[in-house]
Amino acid sequence: MKIYDFPKGPYPTRVRIALAEKDMLSRVEFVMVDLYEGEHKRPEFIAAKNYSGTLPVLELDDGTCIGECTAITEYLDALDGTPKLTGNTPLEKGLIHMMTKRAEIELLDAVSVYFHHGTPGLGPKVELYQNPEWGFRQRDKAVRGMRYFDTVLSRQPYVAGEAFSMADIAVIGGLLFASLVELPVPDECEALRGWYAKMLRRESVRRQPAFSGLPVAVC
Amino acid sequence: MKIYDFPKGPYPTRVRIALAEKDMLSRVEFVMVDLYEGEHKRPEFIAAKNYSGTLPVLELDDGTCIGECTAITEYLDALDGTPKLTGNTPLEKGLIHMMTKRAEIELLDAVSVYFHHGTPGLGPKVELYQNPEWGFRQRDKAVRGMRYFDTVLSRQPYVAGEAFSMADIAVIGGLLFASLVELPVPDECEALRGWYAKMLRRESVRRQPAFSGLPVAVC
Ligand SMILES: N[C@@H](CCC(=O)N[C@@H](CS)C(=O)NCC(=O)O)C(=O)O
Ligand SMILES: N[C@@H](CCC(=O)N[C@@H](CS)C(=O)NCC(=O)O)C(=O)O
Repeated sequence: MKIYDFPKGPYPTRVRIALAEKDMLSRVEFVMVDLYEGEHKRPEFIAAKNYSGTLPVLELDDGTCIGECTAITEYLDALDGTPKLTGNTPLEKGLIHMMTKRAEIELLDAVSVYFHHGTPGLGPKVELYQNPEWGFRQRDKAVRGMRYFDTVLSRQPYVAGEAFSMADIAVIGGLLFASLVELPVPDECEALRGWYAKMLRRESVRRQPAFSGLPVAVC
Repeated sequence: MKIYDFPKGPYPTRVRIALAEKDMLSRVEFVMVDLYEGEHKRPEFIAAKNYSGTLPVLELDDGTCIGECTAITEYLDALDGTPKLTGNTPLEKGLIHMMTKRAEIELLDAVSVYFHHGTPGLGPKVELYQNPEWGFRQRDKAVRGMRYFDTVLSRQPYVAGEAFSMADIAVIGGLLFASLVELPVPDECEALRGWYAKMLRRESVRRQPAFSGLPVAVC
């Protein structure tokens, strides 16, 4: 398998964490795609790899491409017949999928829109259209999202309940992206900060390129 | 089980189709939430039912709430131990999740943003902030998305491959929403139009409130 990758990117980091959790990092060849050069927006990449023009993309040995972190995680987690990131029971599946999507909508994707629209983003080769007002709205939404996840984590140890899951990985992606754009977690979000410090000590997270060199309490 | 619902809404219709596919419609009590009155944005609804303030929401008998169409579908599909909408093999799961997400990002959610930002949307009680320029960009993105799904459906019978799945339901939601905001499917998208005509004849789709009274070829 190949993964089209940008090693320190928040979304590719989600899939790297999933691979580490499943002990599968060594089964994957990483192919670097230069986001700042806009390689992911070239017509060949869009036609052959991912219509949405984003990373990561998983390419199977027969050439099938799977884009979207959640879909890649679903695939990888099911491969060995013992899912541990996406849930076993109907209720686990439902809650993990809900909280993962919520982490995207309310935090990670919101920070991403802020990055692409409210800051220079990937630079002039890529950011051909920007809507700063929309970017700033999404930044504020992301901060509200942090407060929401703080409440969740003041009641339960992990984002979707009692166990680590794909939903925690999505919130990790959100806080990683927030730290890259210098959007701090509010001081009073103690449960979220405590959970994040624990996540940054977790083997599958700690060893990712995105976190190497960062102080442990990045937020 | 209860579903907080707006019967003709494109997103609630996705879950209604999933329920019909699983022959479970009669097991659910539908509770109407008036979107035009902004009932879904009231603090009580947000705190108790769905932080994101959207419909549908599934409430289990113990009070657990699951928001997000994909998460609700995942839950419902797993209940009887024989998933038919979300995939059985790792590859099916990966492709169905990818195509569902793509249908949201590139079509359904884009039409939704256009509705809320580029048209009067749900009206002055709900649309407290609008960004028309962003809305129009998303409208154009949705039309490009239609062309993309047309290409997909010119190569295979269903959105994620050889079988009907949650991904078809998401594209149905997208075309339903597009018809509500009078965004027509381009004439030359013959494969997409043919597939949609077939979907509108499908039992689980045809009998939904959103389609009753509509001519079969709505697009
Ligand atoms: N919905 C996608 C989003 C992926 C995404 O936005 N990836 C970033 C890399 S960290 C990207 O490709 N950004 C480039 C761009 O949007 O121009 C997923 O979950 O995989
Ligand atoms: N991501 C959500 C979106 C749901 C959604 O946008 N639902 C519409 C009803 S058709 C809604 O609640 N709109 C109200 C609003 O956005 O104010 C899902 O997939 O369930």
